[in-house]
Amino acid sequence: MRINSARLQASLETMAQIGRTPGGGVTRLALSDEDKAARDLLARWLAEAGLTVQVDDFGNMLARRPGSDPAAAPVRLGSHLDTVRQGGRFDGALGVLAALEVVRTLNDAGAVTRRPIEIVNWTNEEGARFEPAMLGSGAATGRFTKAFVYGRADREGRTFGDELVRIGYCGDPAQRPGPAHAYLELHIEQGPVLEEAGVPVGVVEGIIGITWCQVTVEGQSAHAGTMPLARRRDALQAAAHLVLATRELARQAGPDARATVGRFIVEPNVTNVIPGRVSFSVDFRHPEAALLDRLVEQLHARAEQVAAAEGVRISIERFWTSEPTPFDPAVKETIEAAVRELGMPFQRLWSGAGHDAKYMQDCCPSGMIFVRSQGGLSHCEQEASTPEDIAAGANVLLAATLRLAELVSH
Amino acid sequence: MRINSARLQASLETMAQIGRTPGGGVTRLALSDEDKAARDLLARWLAEAGLTVQVDDFGNMLARRPGSDPAAAPVRLGSHLDTVRQGGRFDGALGVLAALEVVRTLNDAGAVTRRPIEIVNWTNEEGARFEPAMLGSGAATGRFTKAFVYGRADREGRTFGDELVRIGYCGDPAQRPGPAHAYLELHIEQGPVLEEAGVPVGVVEGIIGITWCQVTVEGQSAHAGTMPLARRRDALQAAAHLVLATRELARQAGPDARATVGRFIVEPNVTNVIPGRVSFSVDFRHPEAALLDRLVEQLHARAEQVAAAEGVRISIERFWTSEPTPFDPAVKETIEAAVRELGMPFQRLWSGAGHDAKYMQDCCPSGMIFVRSQGGLSHCEQEASTPEDIAAGANVLLAATLRLAELVSH
Repeated sequence: MRINSARLQASLETMAQIGRTPGGGVTRLALSDEDKAARDLLARWLAEAGLTVQVDDFGNMLARRPGSDPAAAPVRLGSHLDTVRQGGRFDGALGVLAALEVVRTLNDAGAVTRRPIEIVNWTNEEGARFEPAMLGSGAATGRFTKAFVYGRADREGRTFGDELVRIGYCGDPAQRPGPAHAYLELHIEQGPVLEEAGVPVGVVEGIIGITWCQVTVEGQSAHAGTMPLARRRDALQAAAHLVLATRELARQAGPDARATVGRFIVEPNVTNVIPGRVSFSVDFRHPEAALLDRLVEQLHARAEQVAAAEGVRISIERFWTSEPTPFDPAVKETIEAAVRELGMPFQRLWSGAGHDAKYMQDCCPSGMIFVRSQGGLSHCEQEASTPEDIAAGANVLLAATLRLAELVSH
Repeated sequence: MRINSARLQASLETMAQIGRTPGGGVTRLALSDEDKAARDLLARWLAEAGLTVQVDDFGNMLARRPGSDPAAAPVRLGSHLDTVRQGGRFDGALGVLAALEVVRTLNDAGAVTRRPIEIVNWTNEEGARFEPAMLGSGAATGRFTKAFVYGRADREGRTFGDELVRIGYCGDPAQRPGPAHAYLELHIEQGPVLEEAGVPVGVVEGIIGITWCQVTVEGQSAHAGTMPLARRRDALQAAAHLVLATRELARQAGPDARATVGRFIVEPNVTNVIPGRVSFSVDFRHPEAALLDRLVEQLHARAEQVAAAEGVRISIERFWTSEPTPFDPAVKETIEAAVRELGMPFQRLWSGAGHDAKYMQDCCPSGMIFVRSQGGLSHCEQEASTPEDIAAGANVLLAATLRLAELVSH
């Protein structure tokens, strides 16, 4: 059994018209009019595929294709339809529409599975409108309270709760996704690893751990002309040493480690004044929690050295951590077996970004399949994957689903 | 003959009440109501000292104490009464009020000099309200056109020309300061060099040369999680290397060299996005123009290395240079002879900041005397010099003035 690549491409193309940008990308922020239109289209397609749609009180959409065993827990497939501003056509939408294509393929074949198959569209995965990211899946799995989620406000002050009602997707708490046998999410890689390896698909080991630190360097601002170099306590010179140190530490921690200084603020930020204060973010990522801790410890040690050498004070506040989430070993084995059955080259890799599957792993065995991203680009209008790679990924999703849901007849 | 230290302190104290800040500093922006009050007070004191005040069309105030030789060119003494926001009590005001104290001392002694002695208060030295700095002295010496100066606007859009008229200090082009035999300016050092050397006064070699460059680093912004370290083109990492290089180059160029990165802008400046672009200022200072040029050349060479190593593009635009201005050797010798006569320890040093004397050196032999700054602090409320050091500086100004103006009798 193989998915219909042309039909999947057509669905992706049709969906990409909703919120289409002049540059060929998509802006479809969570709970916007565009998101409503995308949801309405998905609901119509699900109905046409013979499924009934239920919506929970976070706007998560769930549709079920029954199995032969009424008592069996479902296999759940999905992702999200919201995008960042000027994002791409594949991030999120691929996982939802490939799940739909799996069901359409089963329907075409008259296939019966023992377990029901569910398709889910999670609300506000991106966090581009309402922070933090993955609000819908996090709320459904108990990470966030309803009051917290409903109170999240966008830049204009409109809340998640109000916008959910406004677009008509505030459903029933009783309709929240229930227990599942497994959760599978197909997604574009959003990075260059598969492309570099020359393989169309990847089996995802898990979601990398992330920790965020705020570093503050306090020196002494002074006149750029009257203060000799030897007497300065220049916060920017000290910060430059630490910026280089973060990358050096991550390099020493192996190829799966990441360190990024993304936010960087200099005060007073005047051409002829020595910076008195610099504050910056450090984003460390690693698949192992212990190694994340070690990176932060090493940063502290480097900061002490720099502070002593430069005559500045440095404080480091580790203010947020998302623990590493390895996916279920059996689900990963099942995905890998499906890839091998299809004879595709593949690679195992960690996801450096968060996905709804991270929170689903809280409550059921979960796994992800990555599709090769052209140029490793994502969250931009240039985001792309070839139809062949997309079909490859969708066929892996189908094959893994058949194994997990247990094909009875077709 | 010695100045009256108590009287000079009292004058400084009285002047510091105009624009006094709660923190003990002064905010007296050029052509503000506070500047007008300071000018009115100075005019009254000058009149009380028997001088008549003339005001030119840039608001520069000039008062003359006649000499015995009607044909002799004057010796001019002065500085400025404007301050930065929340500046100190001594920057500028010291040079004007010490000049007044010199005249008061001569009056007390019934002294007659061959040359006239002039006291000048230059308009808008700081550039804190109207950019650039030293507008009044620059305009009087032909560096700036009248149209340029009058059109300078503050943050609220009020122009130099309008504000000059508003406070009643728009005078006559015929009253611009004429040729002079010499110009002397007493000023606080604004840096830590004299304090470190343990001497109360300094003989200033000249005004250091300054050159400003704008550096732009262009990499590729990407997701902090999905882009492996080895594949990044991180503009901030590259910029950090160059920030450290600027200081290293200046260190190699000797103790009078300075390099400062003061403005530093990161884009998009988001915690989990690799910086795609960084732009920053470089302020190089050196007493020799050729060495300034060499610093910029060396920065270019470093930038090429960093660009190659980091996979980024780096452009450097050298957009402004203020040439080094050595003061007149004979005037410096005269000041040094005056210091030696007074038996004071002193040091020769370059001024790392600009002063009105830089532009006066364009049209007459000029020199400066520095007074030790406590902690090297300036342009802040904590700016301070002891009464003893201030008296020492004012006595050097008096002794040098007597040599240049030629004491006839007392």
